[in-house]
Amino acid sequence: MARRRQIYEGKAKILYEGPEPGTIIQYFKDDATAFNAEKKGTINGKGVINNRISEYVFTRLSHIGIPTHFIRRLNMREQLVRQVEIIPLEVVVRNVAAGSLSKRLGIEEGELLPHTLIEYCLKDDALGDPKVSEEEIACFNWCSHEEMQDMSSMAIRINDFLCGMFAAIDIRLVDFKLEFGRIWDGDFSRTILADEISPDGCRLWDINTGEKLDKDRFRRDMGGESEAYQEVARRLGLLQNEDSGPGEVLDMNAHRGRLRTPTKPVKK
Amino acid sequence: MARRRQIYEGKAKILYEGPEPGTIIQYFKDDATAFNAEKKGTINGKGVINNRISEYVFTRLSHIGIPTHFIRRLNMREQLVRQVEIIPLEVVVRNVAAGSLSKRLGIEEGELLPHTLIEYCLKDDALGDPKVSEEEIACFNWCSHEEMQDMSSMAIRINDFLCGMFAAIDIRLVDFKLEFGRIWDGDFSRTILADEISPDGCRLWDINTGEKLDKDRFRRDMGGESEAYQEVARRLGLLQNEDSGPGEVLDMNAHRGRLRTPTKPVKK
Repeated sequence: MARRRQIYEGKAKILYEGPEPGTIIQYFKDDATAFNAEKKGTINGKGVINNRISEYVFTRLSHIGIPTHFIRRLNMREQLVRQVEIIPLEVVVRNVAAGSLSKRLGIEEGELLPHTLIEYCLKDDALGDPKVSEEEIACFNWCSHEEMQDMSSMAIRINDFLCGMFAAIDIRLVDFKLEFGRIWDGDFSRTILADEISPDGCRLWDINTGEKLDKDRFRRDMGGESEAYQEVARRLGLLQNEDSGPGEVLDMNAHRGRLRTPTKPVKK
Repeated sequence: MARRRQIYEGKAKILYEGPEPGTIIQYFKDDATAFNAEKKGTINGKGVINNRISEYVFTRLSHIGIPTHFIRRLNMREQLVRQVEIIPLEVVVRNVAAGSLSKRLGIEEGELLPHTLIEYCLKDDALGDPKVSEEEIACFNWCSHEEMQDMSSMAIRINDFLCGMFAAIDIRLVDFKLEFGRIWDGDFSRTILADEISPDGCRLWDINTGEKLDKDRFRRDMGGESEAYQEVARRLGLLQNEDSGPGEVLDMNAHRGRLRTPTKPVKK
């Protein structure tokens, strides 16, 4: 296969031209950044895990009728997705106070919100992805009114689904980030879920211990980030062997390859 | 008159118990603060001017049917107002990009917004009056849905009125801040305009020269803030003599007294 044309390199992924028009290959890196890339590092094996978790989540979301860009996983670090025009907004869904919300509004981290909140941030690294209001989104036409409605109604459904999915494996879904894209069909466009859903963009706390199983371990220098990501994958039944220790979990640094099918049934 | 009981001292005003139940006296200080009170100073005569401008604006707003807390001006620095339960939100109306909006969204100061924007900030000095979304306001019940609707529809009407009023005296209303309060009648409450409207809480630019006639002169160490406030009052016909220089403008430091009625017609 000829060297593929790189379309874009982001903080955690590289996008390559896909094999057919309208497709893209998402390559998941181990690079981790936080605080608008002020902090940089690597989480060993993260790309492999996120590729796998995102495949798992997007596939299941499509089963409940959420349209996504996901086509299929290609190998350990790559997945084939539909090319979309990314809507320049991060859609953040919050169930429990944490992170910037706690800081901004002085609400203790861990406090259950009276109801789920959706917020929007403009995807603009130079500005630090500022939070924007629905009114500002309309004013500057970052997306249409119809797209706002599509995104918020999908975000609510996705939240319900993910809360259930994570509850089943004793994880509390504190908050998470979504991105959506447009697929054009002549003059009309459809809004579909894009990017990824993984511990990079979610806050996931163990329901019983409160232990953080997400990128906050990296943001806050807690250590154990690789193990936390693996724990999420393990609970989802995505690792070869439920009892594997970190060292036994496949080769997380493989750039090509295939996750082996579990050789024994995964307990849940 | 016996020494009045002080209810509250804010950054720019002191509130005293009024002569009758349900009334309050607003005393306008010359103290100026900026950047959440990190910067402090005095603008000579500001209290006198703001008392007068706010009287002028609130009186005229009541003529177009906006309910306000204003009852009457008592003297140079004081006005009698209705006691309200302040809704803990600042309602900011923006016509032109400036200040925090320009910084947050990277829009050049002075750029006309595609349409007027309303934003809300939680009145909380310790948190730096953070911007909050309508959804967050509903979630934490900082005001009711009906109050939100009252405030936003009044804010839009007030903006239209003030844009016209300032346009008539060659001033561009860039943005301004409002506060509202509740008046209780048994279990029911009404939302009325409270606080003040003055160059402290507005951005006012000369239409022809772009010169700033507001608190940004203080925030940005530009000097000439007293003169700028006086210029606004002068154009509104509130100073004794349209041709007066700053030094001739009554005694701005008077704590008691009465603004003299203009002795000659004020040209507009």
